[in-house]
Amino acid sequence: METNAGVPDSELDASYKVALELAHSAGQVIKEAFQRKDKGLSTKSTSADLVTVTDRKVEDMAFTLLREKFPHHSFIGEETAAAGVRSELTDNPTWMIDPIDGTTNFVHGFPFVCISIALCVKKQVEIGIIHNPILNETYTARRGQGAYLNGERIQTGSQDDLSKSLVLTEFGAHREEAFLSFKFKNMRSVINKAHGIRCTGSAALALCQLAKGGADAYFEFGIHCWDIAAGDLIAREAGAFTMDTQGGPVDLMSRRIIGAATEKLARELSSTIDHTELERD
Amino acid sequence: METNAGVPDSELDASYKVALELAHSAGQVIKEAFQRKDKGLSTKSTSADLVTVTDRKVEDMAFTLLREKFPHHSFIGEETAAAGVRSELTDNPTWMIDPIDGTTNFVHGFPFVCISIALCVKKQVEIGIIHNPILNETYTARRGQGAYLNGERIQTGSQDDLSKSLVLTEFGAHREEAFLSFKFKNMRSVINKAHGIRCTGSAALALCQLAKGGADAYFEFGIHCWDIAAGDLIAREAGAFTMDTQGGPVDLMSRRIIGAATEKLARELSSTIDHTELERD
Repeated sequence: METNAGVPDSELDASYKVALELAHSAGQVIKEAFQRKDKGLSTKSTSADLVTVTDRKVEDMAFTLLREKFPHHSFIGEETAAAGVRSELTDNPTWMIDPIDGTTNFVHGFPFVCISIALCVKKQVEIGIIHNPILNETYTARRGQGAYLNGERIQTGSQDDLSKSLVLTEFGAHREEAFLSFKFKNMRSVINKAHGIRCTGSAALALCQLAKGGADAYFEFGIHCWDIAAGDLIAREAGAFTMDTQGGPVDLMSRRIIGAATEKLARELSSTIDHTELERD
Repeated sequence: METNAGVPDSELDASYKVALELAHSAGQVIKEAFQRKDKGLSTKSTSADLVTVTDRKVEDMAFTLLREKFPHHSFIGEETAAAGVRSELTDNPTWMIDPIDGTTNFVHGFPFVCISIALCVKKQVEIGIIHNPILNETYTARRGQGAYLNGERIQTGSQDDLSKSLVLTEFGAHREEAFLSFKFKNMRSVINKAHGIRCTGSAALALCQLAKGGADAYFEFGIHCWDIAAGDLIAREAGAFTMDTQGGPVDLMSRRIIGAATEKLARELSSTIDHTELERD
């Protein structure tokens, strides 16, 4: 039987099973490395844009396994992209993987660290798995089938008023003056209205926090498709409303997103902040 | 036998035992309320300065127990102070309690929530206990005896370079324009140098994160003595260096603090940020 996505259900079932096992085995590798002092650290675009041997090892491990199981699928990964391979999202089943979302946290021993795995078909996320091996939290979702934390159904809150909201966003790894000014201006606009802002250093886990009702809204500029693909599905399947920062559906390659417990709150947050267009993934 | 603090060891031992039991029984109350939707919310100084029936219930519960056990001790608590009772720190054994540090997190279901209990003698913290009942983390310290998480010794990192540091601070509940501008300027100065900033909404747990090596530095203006008394001892007993933001020992009543893995890092952070004096506790 074929789903709307044009891929047999059986293939999605098999993909989900393989991805879940992968999340756990990769999680073991991440957890062991998290406990070691020497993280094998180097930098990428800025002195705050970090990568470790574990990021690369986990991405290699993931792509090797998935290519063997699903040789006709396509692949987009953070470290592959950093190595210069263009991220191209086609209608073909495409895995988007961030081997470690929260690399800076990983380097510093701050426990918001996860692997994020998404499978897109016809540019739509069908499977999202986010596993934090430090806090033992596994968030899972399949399109149309709800969102789960360690096997238990989760649901977002119902807040629709920014003045009563806790909002998640990030300073990020970019250090260009103009982009930082833009980010700070947005944080200031939000703090003037909201109960508070929290910054935990992982876009994927921020979307999970929203999904389980641990925050009311999330927005960010500068993230990449592999940071948000799984989290966006998990949040939506938990009842959250996600959109492009200026409205319309989330564009995974546009490097910006708003998610909120309700559509009303997402739109209020959108009208509170400034917007910018970034170079696409 | 009398310690330097002028209180018999046996009394400090008994105080520690009572405080640890109190942390766990209060933790049960906090955890049960955390899982309920209706938090019995009201506001204090600003629309972002939150208090719930649970904050008051836990503080009452703590002070009733401690007054019964130690009738000659003194007491400083967040909600007692909010009710207009002046916080006065004398040489007398004085309990400083924040019934819920991270009230905004508590209200929103964000899991950085704790009770913070400190006992000061001659203005020096002898006992610090911070219990997060949501994540099941109990941080404990007695002066000169090391710091522990769930009974296991913890130690801070060894970072001495701000350009390689993860720094914790908070937006806070204050909404005055000038104070927010001051805070944002400091965050900007720090982000220009550091690997990143994380904001988790609890001063007590930020100091614990520093203590266990999960972040390299922490600074904040606007906190109160009950937010930092226990965490300051826990961080120092784990090897952290804490000081007034402009150098010199931490003044618990001055509403500002820097903590870092090393003295060098604390001083570099101090010279990176602006300083301000706040109305004392």
